[in-house]
Amino acid sequence: MAKYKVTFLPEGKTVEVDEGTTLFQAAEKAGVYLNSLCGGEGVCGNCRVQVTGGQAKPDKGSILILSKEEIQSGYVLACQTAVKDNLEVVVPPEARLEEEQILTASRQQDLEAWRRAPAITYGEPGWVSLHKVPHDPASLFEPLVTKVYLELSPPTREDNIPDTGRIVRELKKKLNYPEYEITLHCLKDMCEQLRSHDWKVTVVVARHDDMGKIIQIQGGDTTDRNYGVAVDVGTTTVVAQLVHLGTGQVMGVEGNHNLQAHYGEDVLSRITFACGKGSLRILQEAVVKNINTLIKALTAEKGIDAADITCVVAAGNTTMSHLLLGLMPCSIRDDPYVPTVDLYPPFSAREVGIEIARNGILQVMPSVASYVGGDTVAGVLACGLADSAETSCLIDVGTNGEIVIGNNQWMLSCSASAGPAFEGGDTKCGMRATRGAIQRLNISDGRVAYDTIGKAKPRGISGSGLVELLYELARNRIVDIDGKFRSGMADKRLVSSDGQTQYIVAFPDETATGRELVITQTDIDNIMRSKAAIFAAIKSLVNYAGLSFDQLNKVYVAGGFGSYLDIEKSIGIGLIPDITKEKIEFLGNSSLMGARMALISYHAYDKAVRISRGITNIELSHYAPFADEYMAALYLPHIDHNLLFPSVKFKES
Amino acid sequence: MAKYKVTFLPEGKTVEVDEGTTLFQAAEKAGVYLNSLCGGEGVCGNCRVQVTGGQAKPDKGSILILSKEEIQSGYVLACQTAVKDNLEVVVPPEARLEEEQILTASRQQDLEAWRRAPAITYGEPGWVSLHKVPHDPASLFEPLVTKVYLELSPPTREDNIPDTGRIVRELKKKLNYPEYEITLHCLKDMCEQLRSHDWKVTVVVARHDDMGKIIQIQGGDTTDRNYGVAVDVGTTTVVAQLVHLGTGQVMGVEGNHNLQAHYGEDVLSRITFACGKGSLRILQEAVVKNINTLIKALTAEKGIDAADITCVVAAGNTTMSHLLLGLMPCSIRDDPYVPTVDLYPPFSAREVGIEIARNGILQVMPSVASYVGGDTVAGVLACGLADSAETSCLIDVGTNGEIVIGNNQWMLSCSASAGPAFEGGDTKCGMRATRGAIQRLNISDGRVAYDTIGKAKPRGISGSGLVELLYELARNRIVDIDGKFRSGMADKRLVSSDGQTQYIVAFPDETATGRELVITQTDIDNIMRSKAAIFAAIKSLVNYAGLSFDQLNKVYVAGGFGSYLDIEKSIGIGLIPDITKEKIEFLGNSSLMGARMALISYHAYDKAVRISRGITNIELSHYAPFADEYMAALYLPHIDHNLLFPSVKFKES
Repeated sequence: MAKYKVTFLPEGKTVEVDEGTTLFQAAEKAGVYLNSLCGGEGVCGNCRVQVTGGQAKPDKGSILILSKEEIQSGYVLACQTAVKDNLEVVVPPEARLEEEQILTASRQQDLEAWRRAPAITYGEPGWVSLHKVPHDPASLFEPLVTKVYLELSPPTREDNIPDTGRIVRELKKKLNYPEYEITLHCLKDMCEQLRSHDWKVTVVVARHDDMGKIIQIQGGDTTDRNYGVAVDVGTTTVVAQLVHLGTGQVMGVEGNHNLQAHYGEDVLSRITFACGKGSLRILQEAVVKNINTLIKALTAEKGIDAADITCVVAAGNTTMSHLLLGLMPCSIRDDPYVPTVDLYPPFSAREVGIEIARNGILQVMPSVASYVGGDTVAGVLACGLADSAETSCLIDVGTNGEIVIGNNQWMLSCSASAGPAFEGGDTKCGMRATRGAIQRLNISDGRVAYDTIGKAKPRGISGSGLVELLYELARNRIVDIDGKFRSGMADKRLVSSDGQTQYIVAFPDETATGRELVITQTDIDNIMRSKAAIFAAIKSLVNYAGLSFDQLNKVYVAGGFGSYLDIEKSIGIGLIPDITKEKIEFLGNSSLMGARMALISYHAYDKAVRISRGITNIELSHYAPFADEYMAALYLPHIDHNLLFPSVKFKES
Repeated sequence: MAKYKVTFLPEGKTVEVDEGTTLFQAAEKAGVYLNSLCGGEGVCGNCRVQVTGGQAKPDKGSILILSKEEIQSGYVLACQTAVKDNLEVVVPPEARLEEEQILTASRQQDLEAWRRAPAITYGEPGWVSLHKVPHDPASLFEPLVTKVYLELSPPTREDNIPDTGRIVRELKKKLNYPEYEITLHCLKDMCEQLRSHDWKVTVVVARHDDMGKIIQIQGGDTTDRNYGVAVDVGTTTVVAQLVHLGTGQVMGVEGNHNLQAHYGEDVLSRITFACGKGSLRILQEAVVKNINTLIKALTAEKGIDAADITCVVAAGNTTMSHLLLGLMPCSIRDDPYVPTVDLYPPFSAREVGIEIARNGILQVMPSVASYVGGDTVAGVLACGLADSAETSCLIDVGTNGEIVIGNNQWMLSCSASAGPAFEGGDTKCGMRATRGAIQRLNISDGRVAYDTIGKAKPRGISGSGLVELLYELARNRIVDIDGKFRSGMADKRLVSSDGQTQYIVAFPDETATGRELVITQTDIDNIMRSKAAIFAAIKSLVNYAGLSFDQLNKVYVAGGFGSYLDIEKSIGIGLIPDITKEKIEFLGNSSLMGARMALISYHAYDKAVRISRGITNIELSHYAPFADEYMAALYLPHIDHNLLFPSVKFKES
């Protein structure tokens, strides 16, 4: 088979690949990670690159997606273009995944941005829910993995029971689990360990059900060196928190982009990729690399040894949880949407590839259904929805929107596929909330004012930026209540391109890419569908429960997205219900918060299990009224504007 | 460092080794396994080899052990001789470990010999004890690892629980354990497994306490392919039995010599070796190789796949159990004799190195104390001692003798170091019970008649041969009641050599080695000490319980050795108590029998755990009267001949 050289610019990295390899694969081989929302299906257009040397024919798919000018300039879709010549390829900024930035220079800035987000965020000690229910056993501090220091009496002729018996006898005085079990590894050098440390040892015990599993025995008193990591495994972002398991104190937080995004932006495209030819392993290794990278960053920052991390608790949606563990997720995708498992036993973290203490535990948070996962359960645990007699609602906005409604007697959940619009996908200039993303935006008298993350020149528009943009377009009557650009407007920003109207948010001279940032009619249509799906899901669940919005005591809005969201503008486009603002609470990353709670309290984990068992999931695709609710929500803010969104006022047209 | 070549004859195998390597290590490198009883301490003299080319200086230790003639002929102790020249070395037959023979040609003969042994032997279906106690739950057939075939209903919209939930729901109808857990490996391809086999699968479940652990899921009905292996891990011999776990039927049995014997004959020298510089691994790998070799032989013989073996139950003394699992055995050796563990959790067989099914289980039988191990517990389980209201005694004769006395209300145990005399060590011409060993022996009018294993020319004398020899010497008044050769006897077989009297059992022209087979006064002294230790232990324990021998309902004699033993001659030398012969029952390998019972019934395993907990061990080295009992037993048959051994009559002198 012929081999060709491909050089990627501006890096100047060259790789040799077999004939027929796609440019996308070649880039990956070169360590140049390209953006892809569709998982290499040739439909999102995010991996467009410019061929500046050698011959590369754009395929049919590329021709449909790219403009004539782009094709003439040598642009192709990397995922659809096979290498059949030695090539020189320029990768424009918008086609890149920005992981290096996230992991190095701009990481602190990004984290700062996240921390600046309103309301409760991860990183703060103390929990939301535990304070609400003082006698809840879930507020007992008992980490999933505990270290107990023992001073044993040496054996005598009268007391010559085996070493394990001696340890368990003493251990039971301090940690009285009904049963104990021990790993082979601990037994191996127990004899020397005890004798060389004068019978003073620290026992590392992982709790599961009523069983204490002794996973390590260390010489001397090492109880001050016991750490855990709570991880929110998001489809887009992975965030990890380092927690001292002796005190419960949060020591640090780090986040990075889910490396699986190379292989598809949303859960469905990841499932498609995983269930293809042997690619599950690639996705598993990708997210494990995410977590290991975060652990390395956290341990380096705090000067601790990863071997002292004894437990990782991971919260993710059902697909992310399956992929993390390397479980085939194929049946999640197909009606009747069946996952492999919902209640995950504690696994060896190292068996999964996570580099912590030998025999350290990976506990994945339990899930409810294929599309209501451990992240949602963690969120319910964190916000205390299951503790109160009064009915509340949790809205977790992401690529999928998950809704839970209920109280300490009953809980219902549902999920709606919102699409990646709010996470930076599905729109021409959408991007994830990283450096250069427009987050805040105001339109006034034809002028657009905006803030970007990192105060950088804009490279795209984040999810919350798009919410604000759509709101501003509606408020200024640039789009109509049906989400369509009004015709006959005199606005230099409203132009026609490729046969459709688009609105210029930033002109080429303002941007980092030198290309204008726009929102097209198609983009707006996508956002309209996303927000309609989420609102219709909330409305359906409230109706299903026989309630109305004003009967909700609280509405918790969660998700990384949730932290940035402007409440008035979110209500303004009809994304979240128009209720008293005091009832709305932004949780930030409630998935991470719940994972941390489970990490530091077995009883909280136990409660999460009960929560996952106590939630009844309503499959919206089988719930007939959902379609009508969805249609009614495809307006700004809603077809029943006056009835459902009385507080929303737009300019008179 | 200088390197030298060493050639071993008659094989002609040559190896290159560093200067200073011992000849013993060099032989091992060449795949020539030498005999060693002392673990390379230079005291047993079993590894003597003849240097026929190059210079090798015998060290001081060799000079004490070897005769002048031997030294002049170039004999050295391989373990004490460092290589400092290119050497040619002849390995005489008696210095070899005979494993090739055992594993190939003579194996069937040896096994035949074992099978011919009196009373119950392994290899027979059906158990001793279970028939005695009809309502004992231990007679319930429920293998430690069970296969259950399930035909599941496919998921529907109304019933879309996760795959694991579907499996457990159906499983509970057939095998109602309170709790189930599942391995990560099973979860990984469960999704495909179920769907590609039309929801018909076989679930492999290992039981532990009240928990069922799902260790494999297989497509279709594979319930007829579920095998287990019971292993008796003896200090000298390892014997394995292949059992069909669907029926309980024994399919085959194989045995080999414990390869650890290269590094020391008895448990103490193995502990010394293991607790030296990093040699534990060597001993562990040796016995694992034993087991894997047996499994290969058994599976090849029956044409089955080792991947269908789901469980191994191993019974061994406490040191053997520790070494098998790779646990440091050092504290077992030192007062107050503390092992690492007595109740072994089920481990992954593969983690230990045993090549069976993925996630297959290794269950080690529970032990009582450092010198009363899982083999004894298995023996108690097998003989039913713990089931009867009447008091019985179990005597397991090996390198260590273990005694248990008791009934279904109480049990006492003790152990006595018998030394390796009965297993072929500690005597000049002793050998293990393999091809060429004298087993049966009669002396009449100065003539010695004997039978050897495999009808081969004699190479040495087995343990039971030594019992018979000593008895015959006593009966013919060649030795006196104190075990000393009588002076002034006119017997051409009685000669003097190296300053001590010895008795010629076989002349050079009769033997395989061309060297005469003798028993020396030192040999007899050693045997006297061995038999005295065992009898004193029995007597002490009976006294401790406030009983006399005639109050024993049964005396069970166990051990590979036990199968060959002549009852009259054993009583004759004062090895076992002089009671009605009908009360004496030879069990053969009761350790293997008990292991098989546990393998095919979780309830029998559970009972073994209760037995191990219910036995009170008496440490004889701390029990003052033992020393007196021992001194009194250093006679033939005993100092209280008339009182304790009324049936024993020797020739009038």
